[in-house]
Amino acid sequence: MVQAHALPRNEEGIAAATGILKQRFGDRFQTGASIREQHAHTTTYIANQAPDGVAYPETTEEVSEIVKICAAHKVPVIGFGTGSSLEGHVNAPAGGISVDFLKMDKVLAVHDADLDVVVQPGITREGLNTHLRDKGLFFPIDPGANASIGGMASTRASGTNAVRYGTMKDNILALEAVMPSGEIIRTATRARKSSAGYDLTRLLIGAEGTLGLITEITLKLHGIPEAISSARCSFPTVDAACEAVIATIQYGIPVARIELLDALSVKAANAYSGLGLPEAPLLLLEFHGSEAGVAEQTDAFRDIAEEFGGSDYAATASPEERTKVWKARHDMYYASLQLRPGCKGLSTDVCVPISNLADCVNQTAAKAAEMGLMAPIVGHVGDGNFHTLVLMDMENPEEIAKADTFVGWLNDLALSMDGTCTGEHGIGQGKRPFLVKELGGAVGVMGAIKRALDPDGIMNPGKIVPD
Amino acid sequence: MVQAHALPRNEEGIAAATGILKQRFGDRFQTGASIREQHAHTTTYIANQAPDGVAYPETTEEVSEIVKICAAHKVPVIGFGTGSSLEGHVNAPAGGISVDFLKMDKVLAVHDADLDVVVQPGITREGLNTHLRDKGLFFPIDPGANASIGGMASTRASGTNAVRYGTMKDNILALEAVMPSGEIIRTATRARKSSAGYDLTRLLIGAEGTLGLITEITLKLHGIPEAISSARCSFPTVDAACEAVIATIQYGIPVARIELLDALSVKAANAYSGLGLPEAPLLLLEFHGSEAGVAEQTDAFRDIAEEFGGSDYAATASPEERTKVWKARHDMYYASLQLRPGCKGLSTDVCVPISNLADCVNQTAAKAAEMGLMAPIVGHVGDGNFHTLVLMDMENPEEIAKADTFVGWLNDLALSMDGTCTGEHGIGQGKRPFLVKELGGAVGVMGAIKRALDPDGIMNPGKIVPD
Repeated sequence: MVQAHALPRNEEGIAAATGILKQRFGDRFQTGASIREQHAHTTTYIANQAPDGVAYPETTEEVSEIVKICAAHKVPVIGFGTGSSLEGHVNAPAGGISVDFLKMDKVLAVHDADLDVVVQPGITREGLNTHLRDKGLFFPIDPGANASIGGMASTRASGTNAVRYGTMKDNILALEAVMPSGEIIRTATRARKSSAGYDLTRLLIGAEGTLGLITEITLKLHGIPEAISSARCSFPTVDAACEAVIATIQYGIPVARIELLDALSVKAANAYSGLGLPEAPLLLLEFHGSEAGVAEQTDAFRDIAEEFGGSDYAATASPEERTKVWKARHDMYYASLQLRPGCKGLSTDVCVPISNLADCVNQTAAKAAEMGLMAPIVGHVGDGNFHTLVLMDMENPEEIAKADTFVGWLNDLALSMDGTCTGEHGIGQGKRPFLVKELGGAVGVMGAIKRALDPDGIMNPGKIVPD
Repeated sequence: MVQAHALPRNEEGIAAATGILKQRFGDRFQTGASIREQHAHTTTYIANQAPDGVAYPETTEEVSEIVKICAAHKVPVIGFGTGSSLEGHVNAPAGGISVDFLKMDKVLAVHDADLDVVVQPGITREGLNTHLRDKGLFFPIDPGANASIGGMASTRASGTNAVRYGTMKDNILALEAVMPSGEIIRTATRARKSSAGYDLTRLLIGAEGTLGLITEITLKLHGIPEAISSARCSFPTVDAACEAVIATIQYGIPVARIELLDALSVKAANAYSGLGLPEAPLLLLEFHGSEAGVAEQTDAFRDIAEEFGGSDYAATASPEERTKVWKARHDMYYASLQLRPGCKGLSTDVCVPISNLADCVNQTAAKAAEMGLMAPIVGHVGDGNFHTLVLMDMENPEEIAKADTFVGWLNDLALSMDGTCTGEHGIGQGKRPFLVKELGGAVGVMGAIKRALDPDGIMNPGKIVPD
């Protein structure tokens, strides 16, 4: 494990706040070691830094009360959804209180005619879509994990559908949040658009809980499409697959999903999910629309795929076949780990302009090979966003160091190609050095905002902005 | 005219800064009265508050230099594009320097494959689209006026196409900006999406130049659709028209434009643009897509229109007819003024959830009639956003006061319907009281950000946040 930087602990304040919270919340405030550890980073190579206690509020007012108690004693407050984030966002490097939104998981209002829904942050995306299904509506953002909507908002999540439906920043109308003082604010109304002042909605989306805790979210919804079909096609090279993606986007085909698996990922998926596909770069697609519209999109893509040397093309409107292939895509994390039994994976993501994608993916694969690392690549390539999962023996410090070097190299490569160090995972603890490399002086502006809104630095310290 | 609140002037600083700027920029720094007046508010009922000088920088470095001079002398800096804003954004209530981006109007790079373009802020939307035409690409945001892209970014503009393509916030990838200290920052890269830190791009969009001056903008582009057609349909009532809009959106028809004109607006357009349409609520639509897709959308809308009592339905794929109808729509401001020759118009906009739209429009029309005001209504109704233009005799103070009361009433109505006091015009000077009514404590958070980034309050004082 890589040990994240620890920060000074305010022992006296923590003792006082935990005492008050225990008295106030009883069973809804837990301090047992295993619960605390479950509420810190558990998902990849960054070591766990547990909070001192975990609170389970049921209302916004209770969240405000918790934050006020912590503010009075200058104790860190860290929001927690499902813990599926990848860059150490939920670690407590200075200790403090984890605020788990488990009990704030309600759908507060569905406005069918307005295509919006008001939810509490603890609801998961699958829970929300189950709730919506009989209304013919859905919420499209799909980061793979069954994350909480609050966590997805806080990390500006996206995933496979972003090429068509955008990211969390594009699908949130308004937020309610508890600020570092405990004050409850609303950032916007349910209006579809507004020019009313600074866009605090977008400022809190992606702020990873460092400026406040999101306690209510108004989301845009979409009608479940009349028709859905999916397609897959193998390509001789990553370049050919990427050229097909560029042509698809330029041609204006409104693909709902367009995903790349490199040959190594296809090998992993074949073994884990029984796909039986050629071990070659693969594109997986989904089309949404009317029956005629989907047929038109599918045909147009097939023509493009042929032009770029695609083979083994297959399309289906069968929900079962579609589910199988997307389940395989979502299981890629587990499938990839099986390429090297006993290993752990270091998942990282970058995003580059699509014209640089093939070059970036090719260089990444070549570099991993050169360094003797196994690192399958999958990507939301319609956006130029891809992930690599470096498979590591956690008993081998040399290999961990090598993986760390590789990730640094990849981030530098993406930045050199006018890209970003993270398309969707966020900064957390893991990517702070790259944020400074990427945006330079703008990080100073972020720091000024942070200090203005959270002068005591209690909201999720050690994340995004420099300490 | 309504006199906007004046702020204390720093005479000594202004004298020093104008002296230095004159020496440094020569003819590119103007202090003549008429030029200064042209660079303050000229478009509606708020009185002109001229700056003390107008600078015409040619590079970002020159903008930085101007801001540093003003910062050193604590002199206000007000960005200027084309001056088409409606809420007093370019007024100088404390005097200061207008920074006119007229000479910073270049297209710096077109990235065809990535569907993006990098521009300077002074380019107009029509200028940009003329530049892009032979590449088969276009920038969709269309606020009516031929505004500058920098101004459109700063007011979070939208317009007729927003229902399909979103607003400025959805179509900007990255900004370069000069901050109040004169520091030049970049907010993001050209990556299509990013989770890298606070969303400073969205913070500056809609900040109306109060946090910094935007000096470069990376915009998303779209392919010019293979097919475009338009349609119009009259309805017996505003309710029926709004029901048709709701059904169109819910059905998922990806309309590119869906505009409402009330009966009074149709009367004005008939007289001004020779449309010859029934004087009844009218919907104007545009459809973008493939030939088959557009035909499918048009048919689907016709069925919906019939269901809600639509009549005089007409669709056309003829570019000439389409241009005529949209020119009439864009000329509505002038057409409406002709309803009452010699009058001036007070243009205001609100935006409500679409389910409340018919009620809001009906109550607005009834209130205007009750108050004896002539106030035609047009709207980007797919978003629930509408405008009313109150036609006033500027020699009649009682009428101006009545118009002011009416606008206040309308904003309160929109807020009571979970809407916003401005869908696209911005806050400027005119809507500051409503911003506080709309967002309460969140305005305090905006103020804290403003003070943190601009402690001397030099960037466009008197706008958005309380003084």
